[in-house]
Amino acid sequence: MIRIGILGYGNLGRGVEIAVNKNKDMELVAIFTRRNPEDLKTVYNTKVCSVNNILDYKDQIDVLILCGGSANDLPVQTPEYAKYFNVVDSFDTHKRIPEHFANVDKAAKESNHIGIISVGWDPGMFSVSRIYADSILPNGTTYTFWGPGVSQGHSDAIRRIEGVKDARQYTIPIEKALETVRKGECPNYSVGEKHTRDCYVVVEEGADKARIEREIKTMPNYFDEYETTVNFITEEELKKNHNKIPHGGIVIRNGKTGVNDENIHTVEYKLKLDSNPEFTSSILVAFARAIYKMRNEGRTGCLTVFDVPPAYLSTKSGDELLHEML
Amino acid sequence: MIRIGILGYGNLGRGVEIAVNKNKDMELVAIFTRRNPEDLKTVYNTKVCSVNNILDYKDQIDVLILCGGSANDLPVQTPEYAKYFNVVDSFDTHKRIPEHFANVDKAAKESNHIGIISVGWDPGMFSVSRIYADSILPNGTTYTFWGPGVSQGHSDAIRRIEGVKDARQYTIPIEKALETVRKGECPNYSVGEKHTRDCYVVVEEGADKARIEREIKTMPNYFDEYETTVNFITEEELKKNHNKIPHGGIVIRNGKTGVNDENIHTVEYKLKLDSNPEFTSSILVAFARAIYKMRNEGRTGCLTVFDVPPAYLSTKSGDELLHEML
Repeated sequence: MIRIGILGYGNLGRGVEIAVNKNKDMELVAIFTRRNPEDLKTVYNTKVCSVNNILDYKDQIDVLILCGGSANDLPVQTPEYAKYFNVVDSFDTHKRIPEHFANVDKAAKESNHIGIISVGWDPGMFSVSRIYADSILPNGTTYTFWGPGVSQGHSDAIRRIEGVKDARQYTIPIEKALETVRKGECPNYSVGEKHTRDCYVVVEEGADKARIEREIKTMPNYFDEYETTVNFITEEELKKNHNKIPHGGIVIRNGKTGVNDENIHTVEYKLKLDSNPEFTSSILVAFARAIYKMRNEGRTGCLTVFDVPPAYLSTKSGDELLHEML
Repeated sequence: MIRIGILGYGNLGRGVEIAVNKNKDMELVAIFTRRNPEDLKTVYNTKVCSVNNILDYKDQIDVLILCGGSANDLPVQTPEYAKYFNVVDSFDTHKRIPEHFANVDKAAKESNHIGIISVGWDPGMFSVSRIYADSILPNGTTYTFWGPGVSQGHSDAIRRIEGVKDARQYTIPIEKALETVRKGECPNYSVGEKHTRDCYVVVEEGADKARIEREIKTMPNYFDEYETTVNFITEEELKKNHNKIPHGGIVIRNGKTGVNDENIHTVEYKLKLDSNPEFTSSILVAFARAIYKMRNEGRTGCLTVFDVPPAYLSTKSGDELLHEML
């Protein structure tokens, strides 16, 4: 049995708790939290401990899955806990990945652990999809479409506007752009030419809707480059119709082969997810299995999804893989 | 530079010749053939040698790419040449993979080489897609659809019927079945419920078309379980409209997560290929790069696509991958 620990218990930590429970080669030792452990309501009767006692579990946990946020938690936590545990995180601030990698690599190498970072679907499975397609078809163009799905960051940005009580933002791929790319064409698209943004906003009584709509649509980086639709709805409607966290997206590479580049190949990887955090949790758990095996073979340092042979993710033996999966 | 050799010069060998030429970290040392070398017309001015002299090139080739057929060539060639070279093949007889693996593994281990087998898109990239999705979503069902595309085996089977001059068979996924699966449903489908077969047949003068059509539609294993359409056309039409070798297919896994399996996730990997052999060749070349690197790190024996970390397929450095690809 692979002994798992979870640090942080939001949507992601809860998803990991469920996923570990459904993987028969794993057991969940404990959930660690910064909150008062008694205040945590877990899904199963999982042991909950204060993060202050986490080092007591140093020898009882094979892989610690870090379920904090990329903005403030993971840049500190992953290098810190890589000193004591094999760790997995879903760090998703693309620009800061090289710096984060270096920090985790140093800590993990010095302490003989493995840390694997940016495990999720983007970065993560989308990156895997990109590297395979790019390596096979070096002469080509890759497109990433996000959605349809809820963007947490954009929803938060709307909530910060004065007069807004709550909001949900959906990122929607533009069907026409998708069609063009699927035909094998290679246009130059900006992000705004690939996606629209639909906002569902609950305002406080008497709030100036026209101003709020204008503030949303002109918000730099978040909305100004996109065709944005703002729908004002009631709190009840938001709770009833927008209580899920679906997401998804598509990576497409169009590549040419042949003496005169006369043949076009389209490789498409598509995700349609009912629950963004539960799918990400499932990925974290599969990669926890992989690094457990790789550590047992002597590997240390920081890894990414690019460094893991697919076989290590599976519970199946080499023989079973040859018979059933190849 | 990675020094590549090619054994066998049909559509696949020709595709490898072109692909190596377009990958800047590789050079093509020679093409080896059982035919008279002077009779071979290659794409570039590649050196052509008789297979009888191949062992003279033992120290001049880093990876030998085997481009023979799975029925008769590869079961013999791959274990044989793994004694002298690092080898890559596209062995695709699913049932015989474990036996082939064992033979190649023994030869490669004894001689300190790497052999990687069943490198293509199915087996190959479809297998990779299956193992990732299965490992991430252990509670689910996987579907493989083939086509639309030319099935060489089925075209050959039609050609063996008396009175048939030439034929082309297209395997077509049934759109309705595909739609059902894409919705997240998990029906039990037979292959015949997922695909139809369209045949374009040129007959000899005076041949009995009704008999030929009946023989095609009732042919065991090949056609009897499928809805099959037979179109009789002229030789000119065949040459004009059916001279390409397109193919493709789709792997979909629907998996459930959540306490009560209430969330469904759909992972789809789709290929649309103008040229089946050129795409397969491109995969062979990327995996040739990977085993070259792995051999330099001391690895030996037989591998499959499951054993190769994605990073090894790429020409990019670890740093470039972190910055550009993750």
